[in-house]
Amino acid sequence: ELFVLTYGALVAQLCKDYEKDEDVNICLDRMGYGIGIRLIDDFLARSAVKKCRSYSETADMIAQVAFKMYLGVTASVSCSSAAGNEFSLILDKNPLVDFVEELPAERASLCYCNLLCGVIRGALEMVHLAAEVTFLQDRLKGDAVTEIGITFLRKAED
Amino acid sequence: ELFVLTYGALVAQLCKDYEKDEDVNICLDRMGYGIGIRLIDDFLARSAVKKCRSYSETADMIAQVAFKMYLGVTASVSCSSAAGNEFSLILDKNPLVDFVEELPAERASLCYCNLLCGVIRGALEMVHLAAEVTFLQDRLKGDAVTEIGITFLRKAED
Repeated sequence: ELFVLTYGALVAQLCKDYEKDEDVNICLDRMGYGIGIRLIDDFLARSAVKKCRSYSETADMIAQVAFKMYLGVTASVSCSSAAGNEFSLILDKNPLVDFVEELPAERASLCYCNLLCGVIRGALEMVHLAAEVTFLQDRLKGDAVTEIGITFLRKAED
Repeated sequence: ELFVLTYGALVAQLCKDYEKDEDVNICLDRMGYGIGIRLIDDFLARSAVKKCRSYSETADMIAQVAFKMYLGVTASVSCSSAAGNEFSLILDKNPLVDFVEELPAERASLCYCNLLCGVIRGALEMVHLAAEVTFLQDRLKGDAVTEIGITFLRKAED
């Protein structure tokens, strides 16, 4: 709907502005970061959730509550490291790409939804959690699902 | 929320790309048009409304049903011409500007929400109604309300 199409217009504009996919990806991530650091207040106010006590709880909160609130879908979560600081969020359906058939051949390296990674990274930083957030699988690139990887960079304090 | 902030990122990017406010306004309107001609199918499918039989019905449909569906608010409508082809949609609250305090001094001519005009214009065109759509009042510019003017350009056929 309107958000999804507006997001498409944003990506299209960035593709006009930057020749290299990598630059578009960086720009989307950076924009998302700026959005995430503001969105977190809205999320905490509207969700009225308690403080998460582990990385695992935090990942679940993003996948179940935040994704539902802002994208209308939930993601499933799996922990992908023995250290317990790496998680995969798996989306069977990604509403952001509803109107995108496939990436044009000359944009094969574009992470179309990279804004989401930045949003998650920015929001986590505001609750004092440093993390790397990247797309691991992308249906737009022919993968079976959309998978976002979150790696928490420090040991949780409590 | 996420849509509102993403829209803000889009406007900010265009302000980076174009020095003149007028060029940003044109670009937002053009992008909106491209969105409107795609969004109309979604609207018709989800709203399951009947064909409007007058300009007045059409304006009400946009203000009451479409605005509610995509922006979460409704607008009040007034007819502003004896010929019955000019309407004002008045928004007491414009969610798109929730995170915008005020326009920077050097962007005084920016129509921040101009995408909406393009969306309406594009959507109307797809149901064979040519219209001019512009902002008449804008709270971001110190007006008391946000007012969108729609002028239908041909006599309604039925």
